[in-house]
Amino acid sequence: MSEDERPFVQATYRALCRHGFANVTMQDIADETDRSKASLHYHYEGKEDLFETFLERLYEDYRATTEDPPGETPAERLVGLVRAVLSTSDDSTSFTTAYLEIKAQAPYREGYRTRLERVDRHTRDRVAELVTAGVDAGEFPADTDPQAVASFVTTHLHGTWTRSVVADEVAAMRERLVDYVCERLVADATIDRSVGLTDGRDAGAEGDTDDPGEVAE
Amino acid sequence: MSEDERPFVQATYRALCRHGFANVTMQDIADETDRSKASLHYHYEGKEDLFETFLERLYEDYRATTEDPPGETPAERLVGLVRAVLSTSDDSTSFTTAYLEIKAQAPYREGYRTRLERVDRHTRDRVAELVTAGVDAGEFPADTDPQAVASFVTTHLHGTWTRSVVADEVAAMRERLVDYVCERLVADATIDRSVGLTDGRDAGAEGDTDDPGEVAE
Repeated sequence: MSEDERPFVQATYRALCRHGFANVTMQDIADETDRSKASLHYHYEGKEDLFETFLERLYEDYRATTEDPPGETPAERLVGLVRAVLSTSDDSTSFTTAYLEIKAQAPYREGYRTRLERVDRHTRDRVAELVTAGVDAGEFPADTDPQAVASFVTTHLHGTWTRSVVADEVAAMRERLVDYVCERLVADATIDRSVGLTDGRDAGAEGDTDDPGEVAE
Repeated sequence: MSEDERPFVQATYRALCRHGFANVTMQDIADETDRSKASLHYHYEGKEDLFETFLERLYEDYRATTEDPPGETPAERLVGLVRAVLSTSDDSTSFTTAYLEIKAQAPYREGYRTRLERVDRHTRDRVAELVTAGVDAGEFPADTDPQAVASFVTTHLHGTWTRSVVADEVAAMRERLVDYVCERLVADATIDRSVGLTDGRDAGAEGDTDDPGEVAE
């Protein structure tokens, strides 16, 4: 992506949050920049082309987010990765909704599908690396299957995003996934569970794992 | 729903599988019946009204599917429920895709959202009942929190559906969720893992839990 395109990517994010994927138009995206719609069409053939670039950029950001999660040990870093990937912000619900619309288009659009598959594969690979390191360090039981855990966690991340659109809050679900890592995967719960809880709003989740439904949002 | 409406519901399912939610029209749905489009409009004001009835019917079917899952013990019945809910058929991928499109519309349409929330709540309630029964029977550890497990499993079901659209196969993910129930929740794996494996295609998953990626589809 050229430097010229960067403002369009940020404008696409804002326009998606405002209008959703099905309804957003090239004009809506141009309206979020100080450029004209003609300038947008100079860079992109149309909505599909623009969104392929947008998904590329999301992937780059996602790689950066998952590159070096906080935490001392591999299990702590897995908790840190879960909290980093499932962080919440004011516009995250509207973006998650728009992103779910894009996922639902994957079977119809090869350009979206290959990019979404890459995010999925990257997630599995990062989780598997951390679990493998955790097994080597004796933090996870020796018979833990890193690939199976990685796929399970990746499926659960998809579930958290989808369910947040329909029925529940990300912060509560995120803490249940942390419970899974700390209580079901790690035999002895000696890891620091506060990893990645840098956000004041989320800190209430700590020590209240029995009823994460009450996590402040 | 009146008997008059039943053919329209079945036609809606077939039209959704064929065209997807975004593209399907009232004409497409009428084309799947021996009635006219005018007859469809006699029963429904429009697409939104028809889809609300359709979601009602899906909910009734879902209740029937989850009412009495196979299995002797509560843990086995939880495995049976997972396998029943995540059963696959030839048209299930195209339907799951269309259903994902509908979920992505939930924030914009109150009528869809309330119906999707009801499915979510019903799932949580059924899983919580089974886990509570399993704790009472000594099958799950006494400190198991049925509500937390129910929410976790429900999130994972959403993840399985979404991820099957983007990146992986339902059967493989379903068996990993069965692993979670049998190996992470139940302390001693004394339950019959074959519950609900009535489909010949799926039987290969048994005894090969280390590499569910190879489950025959």
